[in-house]
This record gives sequence, structure tokens and C-alpha cells, in this order.
Amino acid sequence: MEKFNVHILGCGSALPTSKHLPSAQVVNIREKLFLVDCGEGTQLQFRKARLKFSRLNHIFISHLHGDHCFGLIGLFSTLGLLGRTAPLHIYAHAQGERLLQPWIDYFCNGMKYEIVFHAIDPKQTTIIYEDKSLTVETIPLQHRVPTCGFLFREKPMPRHIIREMIDFYQVPTSQILRIKNGEDFITEEGKVVSHTLLTTPSAPPRAYAYCSDTAYLPSIVPQIQGIDLLYHEATFCAEDTARAKETMHTTAVQAGQIAAAAQVKKLLIGHFSARYENEDLLLKEAQAHFPETCLAHEQMTLSL
Amino acid sequence: MEKFNVHILGCGSALPTSKHLPSAQVVNIREKLFLVDCGEGTQLQFRKARLKFSRLNHIFISHLHGDHCFGLIGLFSTLGLLGRTAPLHIYAHAQGERLLQPWIDYFCNGMKYEIVFHAIDPKQTTIIYEDKSLTVETIPLQHRVPTCGFLFREKPMPRHIIREMIDFYQVPTSQILRIKNGEDFITEEGKVVSHTLLTTPSAPPRAYAYCSDTAYLPSIVPQIQGIDLLYHEATFCAEDTARAKETMHTTAVQAGQIAAAAQVKKLLIGHFSARYENEDLLLKEAQAHFPETCLAHEQMTLSL
Repeated sequence: MEKFNVHILGCGSALPTSKHLPSAQVVNIREKLFLVDCGEGTQLQFRKARLKFSRLNHIFISHLHGDHCFGLIGLFSTLGLLGRTAPLHIYAHAQGERLLQPWIDYFCNGMKYEIVFHAIDPKQTTIIYEDKSLTVETIPLQHRVPTCGFLFREKPMPRHIIREMIDFYQVPTSQILRIKNGEDFITEEGKVVSHTLLTTPSAPPRAYAYCSDTAYLPSIVPQIQGIDLLYHEATFCAEDTARAKETMHTTAVQAGQIAAAAQVKKLLIGHFSARYENEDLLLKEAQAHFPETCLAHEQMTLSL
Repeated sequence: MEKFNVHILGCGSALPTSKHLPSAQVVNIREKLFLVDCGEGTQLQFRKARLKFSRLNHIFISHLHGDHCFGLIGLFSTLGLLGRTAPLHIYAHAQGERLLQPWIDYFCNGMKYEIVFHAIDPKQTTIIYEDKSLTVETIPLQHRVPTCGFLFREKPMPRHIIREMIDFYQVPTSQILRIKNGEDFITEEGKVVSHTLLTTPSAPPRAYAYCSDTAYLPSIVPQIQGIDLLYHEATFCAEDTARAKETMHTTAVQAGQIAAAAQVKKLLIGHFSARYENEDLLLKEAQAHFPETCLAHEQMTLSL
């Protein structure tokens, strides 16, 4: 199967600890790398993960809190020093460009590549990136500043031909693409041969959603229904539910409930508050509602 | 002796590696902490070093290249989250405030402490900080942007009284401070008792200089003459002297020559280019000119 990995670079919350770095992760789809959020230290984590900067062309920023974007300027600067020439696309709230541009002008002066900002409207679901095998769409979230999640969704792949059947029916090469895409074959004698006889189904398209930071928000459930992997913040445990509400974050229980309601295949929780020495309680609380939950940690890789 | 430590948080150059972080160090003088430069990741290194944020009130920025200041905004933000109320003083080129203020306004909104910028003129030697036991003065350096080093110099301490002699001559308490500061004692009978009979000398004042980044610059020698410890950049080895000149950096040989000319007690080299897998050659080249050289490394502490 084609590669579809999620690589965690940082899964702490705003206060960095000796254990967790601020938010950043890389989605690797067929060796195209997509960076989601970019807290301080992301470029170092990226290097430690032995990921290739040259494969990174798109960065998605969920919202403009420091723990999700303070690593951008250092990354921009390093890419410039490494001699990058390919444009780098940043998808963020419009304020991001307004804040970053003066720093880019000052600190990245003379750089040989272009940084292209794409303003996103976190309030509505929009496809903000598309290529031949993938779409990325925003997931409107609820937080103290405009925030959205991101849904990475593979496009359906063409079916696989059965070579023997193609030979048997003497299907001309010119017809094969159409048949892979689900059309039936009509012989010279006018006989209809179903495409299901000539091909096998391709793997079902996979999907990954990143939802951080957000208050408990059941309205996201329909959009993430049945996806393969959901990364959802679980900043607080049940005891701190009031604090979660006040700061517009989610508890582990609520993350588990969202995953259960959306019937996702797997839940990965992160964005842990610095107040918890270890996250076992968070894991237990989420698993009570959704057993297929695991804890994020730095330099973890999950395959979809 | 009162504490006078230098704690290295980062001693790499612009390109971070898995070994070195960008420039940052803490000078600890009697538990007052002074941060010198603040590359990306400084707040994490500070925490790892188990230094106390509450003891940090002054930050000196040598110049506005990213590897010396990208960690500031994350540090500001974290101090705000930790509930700091004491003002934080930043000494940097005026452009630093112009760049940082919009980010502070946006990201540190609602913070309970004040960030006070002090514009420094890197072109001339000026005392930019002073308290009862210490001065910090700028050392004009030569780099691609306005840059200065910093010289931390203890003030001479009062002499120590010899209790037995004070009792013997029945020196009144009111006179003791004057005698500790070097005045002689005159008895009621008019007899002069030299202060050297009544006191022993205090430890000689110590001094530490931070010089990074700079082209080879012998003009700094008189200012740092005889100091206890010199941190000097040694970005390149002798083979790369042309590259050093072009980028306005110093080679290890040149750092050794500066230390020898200034007759400092000890030289600590840092700001190593990412091109060297290990820095033994840099050490050897510097030691050929100045044997009392050592290599900086992250989380190293040196006592003066």
C-alpha cells in the first residue's frame, strides 16, 4: 500500500516540558511531506526524525497561538541557509502572514525561495489543497482564536486490472484506463463484460484528521465519520473539565466520545497539559469511551 | 567565593544540528541570572538546566540574526503563562523592539508582566547594566549586521576585616565600612593604624566576555585584557579561513590569537559551523596559540 504515515514531532501544550514539545506533526503521503503546526523546536525534531526538508512543500497552521507556530521563522531561515529554491506554501489565518512577513523580510533577506501564504477561513469547511491523490480540507473548530483542524483524505484509486481476463477478452490498451475507473467493456460483438470481472477493487481511500485545539465540539462528527485515524487534543483529564471548558480545550473523555460517535478506526490523543506527570489517566479515560485510543509521543510514527 | 558561572545552553551556529543548538547562555552571578542571546529552543534548555525563570530579569542580545534571537518570543510567552509579574529587561539593537513588539502584542496579549526594551548602540563601548556588584558593558564587534559582545565585570569587593585586630584596636562599628573600603583607622590618641593591618584583601574582581559573532577583530584585545574567561566564536577551522572572512566569522586559530594577545586566563570556543562532525580540530588549532582553551558544549557550566 502507498505510504500514509503520521509522524509526531511535538504533542505537548503551551508550556513546554522536558518530556513534550509544542504541537507539530508530519503527514507523509507517498513521500510528500505535509507539516501540520510548527511549534518552537519543530525544525530540530524534523531533523531528528530524519525527514527530508526537500520533500516538504506545504505547511498547515491550525491557529495562531505560539505553541502552534513559533517554529516557523526558524524553519524558514534554515531552509534558506540550506539553499532551498522551491516555493513553500503556508496555509494559515491571514493574520499569520501579517505577523510573519516583516520577520521574513528582515531575517530571511536574500533567501532564494518564495514563501507563499494562503489565507484560510477557519469558520467553514473548504478544500485548501488538492493533488491527484489527495485533498486536504479544513475542519472548523472552536477555540479562543480562529482555529481549524485538517482532514487529509485520499482520492479513490483506480481498480486493479486482472491481466488474464484482459488478455482473454482481448481488451485494447486504449480501454484499460476507463475500465480501471469502473466502466464496463463492450466486445466487438456487442457483449457487455462487467468491469468487476476484469478488475479487483483498489484499497479503500484512507483519511486522517487533526483536531487541535478545540473545545468539545460534537459538530465535527459528521465530517470525520469513519476515518482511519483521528488525532484529537485531550489537554485535560475529567477532574479538570471546568478548566477545559474555560480554556476551550477538550478532556480525554470528550475526545473518546467524539471518536466513538464518529466511529473512527483509531484515536490518537495529544496536546497534553504540562500539569500531568504521565498521561496514563488520560489514556484510561479516553479508552473508557473508545478502546482503540493511543497516546501520542514525540517521534512516534503511525501508519494508516 | 560568590557564584560566577557561565552555563552554555546552545553553542552551534545558524544551522541547528542534532548536536548543537543555536546561541544562548546564562551568566549566573550570585544567583542573578543573565541570559546572553536566545536562539530557538532556549527556554527548553533553560528548563533542562534546572535554572529558575524567576531569577532571570535581564537578557542581552548580541545581534539580530535568527540563531541569536528566535527563542525570545517563546520565552516571553512561557513566562507569561507561568504568571510572571516582574518586568523583563531586553538589551538589543533598536530593530529588535520594532520586530518583537507586534508579536508580543498579538501572542502575549493579557500577560501580567512588562517587557522593557533597552536599545543598545553596538558601535561603542557603553555600560548598559550596573548593580552594586556588577557592570555589563558592550564590546563593539564586526559582523554582517550591527553586533556587540558583552563584558561582565565584578566591582571590587570591600576587604575582609580581621576580627581580632578590630577588637584589639577597639575600632568602633561606625568605622568598619570605611576601613573595609581601604581607609586607615586613627585611634583616639591620633595613632594611624593601616587598614592592611585590620583587613585582608578581598578576592580580585572577576570578568567574563562573550564575543560572538565577529570577524577576526584584534581591536577588542585592550578591552578584554587579563579577564578570567573569554567565550569567543570559532566558527571555522584554518582551512576555511576564506569562508570565515567572507561571512565575517572567526577561525579557531584567530580566537586563540585573540586570547593570547589579551592574556585572558581561559578561552572557551563555540558557535561551531555545522560542517564539522566533531570539533577536535578546532580545539587543537586554538590551543596551538592558546593552550588554556576548551570547547563549549550544551549544558556545560564553567565557574570563574
